[in-house]
Amino acid sequence: MESATQRRYGAVEAGGSKFVCAVGDQSGRILSEARFPTTDPASTLAAMIASLRRQQAECGPLTAIGLASFGPIELNPKSPQHGCILDTPKPGWSGADIKGALEREFAVPVVIDTDVNAAALAEHRWGAARDVPDLVYVTVGTGIGGGALVGGRPVHGLMHPEMGHLLPRRHALDANFRGVCPFHGDCLEGLASGPAILARSGCSLEALAADHPQWEIEADYLGQLCAQLVLVLSPRRIVLGGGVMTQLRLFPAIRPRMRHWLGGYVQRAELHAGIDDYLVAAGLGAQAGILGALALAIELAAAGA
Amino acid sequence: MESATQRRYGAVEAGGSKFVCAVGDQSGRILSEARFPTTDPASTLAAMIASLRRQQAECGPLTAIGLASFGPIELNPKSPQHGCILDTPKPGWSGADIKGALEREFAVPVVIDTDVNAAALAEHRWGAARDVPDLVYVTVGTGIGGGALVGGRPVHGLMHPEMGHLLPRRHALDANFRGVCPFHGDCLEGLASGPAILARSGCSLEALAADHPQWEIEADYLGQLCAQLVLVLSPRRIVLGGGVMTQLRLFPAIRPRMRHWLGGYVQRAELHAGIDDYLVAAGLGAQAGILGALALAIELAAAGA
Repeated sequence: MESATQRRYGAVEAGGSKFVCAVGDQSGRILSEARFPTTDPASTLAAMIASLRRQQAECGPLTAIGLASFGPIELNPKSPQHGCILDTPKPGWSGADIKGALEREFAVPVVIDTDVNAAALAEHRWGAARDVPDLVYVTVGTGIGGGALVGGRPVHGLMHPEMGHLLPRRHALDANFRGVCPFHGDCLEGLASGPAILARSGCSLEALAADHPQWEIEADYLGQLCAQLVLVLSPRRIVLGGGVMTQLRLFPAIRPRMRHWLGGYVQRAELHAGIDDYLVAAGLGAQAGILGALALAIELAAAGA
Repeated sequence: MESATQRRYGAVEAGGSKFVCAVGDQSGRILSEARFPTTDPASTLAAMIASLRRQQAECGPLTAIGLASFGPIELNPKSPQHGCILDTPKPGWSGADIKGALEREFAVPVVIDTDVNAAALAEHRWGAARDVPDLVYVTVGTGIGGGALVGGRPVHGLMHPEMGHLLPRRHALDANFRGVCPFHGDCLEGLASGPAILARSGCSLEALAADHPQWEIEADYLGQLCAQLVLVLSPRRIVLGGGVMTQLRLFPAIRPRMRHWLGGYVQRAELHAGIDDYLVAAGLGAQAGILGALALAIELAAAGA
């Protein structure tokens, strides 16, 4: 039998604006990769199948496939909709069965999770939370989404976390902005995502002077998010990624705001002297999603082996 | 060897105002029980030891002991403080090692968790969440605290959840109340605990007319809590217990407020047609804590068997 190190795994990151398909190995090395825009489901899934088929011919037969998908998705294995996209405003995609398409084509085990749960898994395996089985990964970009591992395993439950829609308290300098979330207006995504920053100040963070109030507002909302996460999930590390978080000067601004909102309640060295290792930037950058899909495939094969 | 059904388990519920010590069996039956007030650690732990020793003589030798404790407590097994009470405003109790005292006296395995994580375990084993391995248990009384199971196991992480201190948005009819939490003022515990109700309206909920605004304010804050829990932890059920929740008419008032704050975002039948089975009253009432301690002991023995 082949050894685990020789195995080839398929990985698909299904995003709202683009798909990434790759083949990788046990060590987290990506051997080949292709990306293409997300259009209608039929064309996009056909492109996905063709891409993975081509890569498989090049790299060798796949042992398993991991699928890291935009949400909401049905993760309950007992549901007849298991693996499908649930109601989504994205035209045509409600009910789409990306997982089923992969299973039918490749006849290998396929595992699906949210893009952010998968990214949490990749950050745990290869990135900024290697030693930490209890963590939250949050992406702050076009939207805000979070995934969580508890005891090394992704949190599902009723559906999966949707922590981008938590409701922060309004910053004093931000009383009049309505927010951009179509569901809630001024939830976290509505107040602190990339489009929210753009709507409030007419440009992205990096274009604003360091003393522009937008920086303080953004840090405060993300600090509230982190405080809420500490209180509910008690993670051992919080990893922040996504486009907005490439502005690394946000980190030293968020940390004291998180502590402010905790109000001295959770007395742990990790939140004080150790805070620079507690609230950290993603280690895998823009690769977290596709590496997350690879990590899902590796874990599935290991569980079945 | 004795069969599992003949085993006797010790259970200790260490509360801020009282201790309960009991001996029970595998089925969740309490065979004997004693309760006494919490005073200074030395006297209280001596009373605990004497009580359990007496009950053991009566019921038979203990296989294991479960300890459901007020917090904050150190749950990391690698910490030298494992099992101890952490910094607490309760005089004399910071650093108290209740678990160590039980281990030294009885020379059987002892397991500790928070009172609310233990209650979640008991509600899962014998109460209102029997079929549900992903749940949150919240007690609303003198304080507000929550425990959570993910995949049937209590959430620990950095410390343990402290969800009573989440920050709800202010209700329009409650703009001027300062809240009673010594750490945060107007966190959930500061706005919606029993003492908060008393401070705001001068009496407890049950003494107020059904159309008094206090009811609506309370339901709104607890609805916000439940919405935040759905977004972060995605539980399959939320169980509310504690003194305030004995006012059962709160439940039909909280459910629509939870949905209001979710803003239609999480589209699951459980939150709509099935909501009466999603957000439910505790099944074990005031026994949840001591039964939680018993459940901890049973699980520990099963894991070691």
